[in-house]
Amino acid sequence: QIIEATASALASGPMSGKHVIVTSGPTHEPIDPVRYIANRSSGAQGTAIARALAALGADVTFITGPADVPAPEGVRVVAVTTAREMADAVDAALPAQAAVFAAAVADWRVTSASDRKIKKTAGGLPVLEFAENTDILARVSQMTEGRPALVVGFAAETDDVIANATAKRARKMCDWIVANDVSPETGIMGGGENAVTIISENGADSWPRMDKTQVAQRLAQLMSDALA
Amino acid sequence: QIIEATASALASGPMSGKHVIVTSGPTHEPIDPVRYIANRSSGAQGTAIARALAALGADVTFITGPADVPAPEGVRVVAVTTAREMADAVDAALPAQAAVFAAAVADWRVTSASDRKIKKTAGGLPVLEFAENTDILARVSQMTEGRPALVVGFAAETDDVIANATAKRARKMCDWIVANDVSPETGIMGGGENAVTIISENGADSWPRMDKTQVAQRLAQLMSDALA
Repeated sequence: QIIEATASALASGPMSGKHVIVTSGPTHEPIDPVRYIANRSSGAQGTAIARALAALGADVTFITGPADVPAPEGVRVVAVTTAREMADAVDAALPAQAAVFAAAVADWRVTSASDRKIKKTAGGLPVLEFAENTDILARVSQMTEGRPALVVGFAAETDDVIANATAKRARKMCDWIVANDVSPETGIMGGGENAVTIISENGADSWPRMDKTQVAQRLAQLMSDALA
Repeated sequence: QIIEATASALASGPMSGKHVIVTSGPTHEPIDPVRYIANRSSGAQGTAIARALAALGADVTFITGPADVPAPEGVRVVAVTTAREMADAVDAALPAQAAVFAAAVADWRVTSASDRKIKKTAGGLPVLEFAENTDILARVSQMTEGRPALVVGFAAETDDVIANATAKRARKMCDWIVANDVSPETGIMGGGENAVTIISENGADSWPRMDKTQVAQRLAQLMSDALA
């Protein structure tokens, strides 16, 4: 009975009937069959956001790279490895009323990737050639047709956090940027807490340092209000 | 009582009083605070080997990179991130009667690593400069003083497995090479099974495909016999 009541409450939550895409975790870009380039991301913040949106009744498509934390319950999970696969999964999941791009997507992929292991004896040091990956945040933000009403990007910065994130918001043309300082000394990467600043058309709103679950719930509520 | 009997049996096992170093898992080589180069390695095979050696009574120092599987019980765990840290930890753990280098150590580190996040807007594609990491297997195999009596290396190959592993054994001057085929189609990387060939002075001995736990137990027994 309690379970039924909860399910019923969720289905009738403030985001009921709204489809939200959430990306989360790192991407892995192969160099050869045994080596890859990765971004540090546990997936904890993206997972918490997907869970919080689902708790408000949203219909969530959760597109996740190889994360350390398990995917939340009650969402549609799409597991990917590379940035290209993530971009394709976002395309396939559209349309949506909102999108939260919390994944740490590789900016570059290795175009010289080998399908055989690069041998150390094959003459000196490896040369890696890169190409830029699709910028998922910019592409969705700049859609001329069927753009989600609310597009939220993330900015992991190590210096000039607010200035860099404000410039990123303008450049990508997304609605909000959730900016945080990932300098090693903050302990945020891989930790349970986050200290974020929300950049919107209204400027920068810095939240106190809090649990990633609390950040997620506050952001989900803000999104719910914006879409209401 | 059962626990005491087991502990007593272990302490009096065939490898009792023998110190064995086991490395396991991948290493991560930083590019900048949010990006790194990694090797695909779950740490499953190295962890199983450490556990099997401890079960034979060995005193195991388990030096592990960021692995997917938890470290075994009953061993001394040293957690590291980079290849350099792993080499230092091996140096610190010596002397030992045997060493098993099951870790997938990065051959190269990024010498152009930045302590600030490399910005995509900072002009085109990144250029990564590499330097060769210390070859732990070769260095320990070629020690002129205090070399472990038995040095076991691993060779993860994608083609010409036995020929490449046999050449590797001669080049590194280790005693045995545990060779396996990590081509994606084998499903060995990240899977529960392994199909290995033991390369020694007696040539190549190919074992049937079996559970990684069984590979570990058979290898530990072989080591125990060799050191007896």
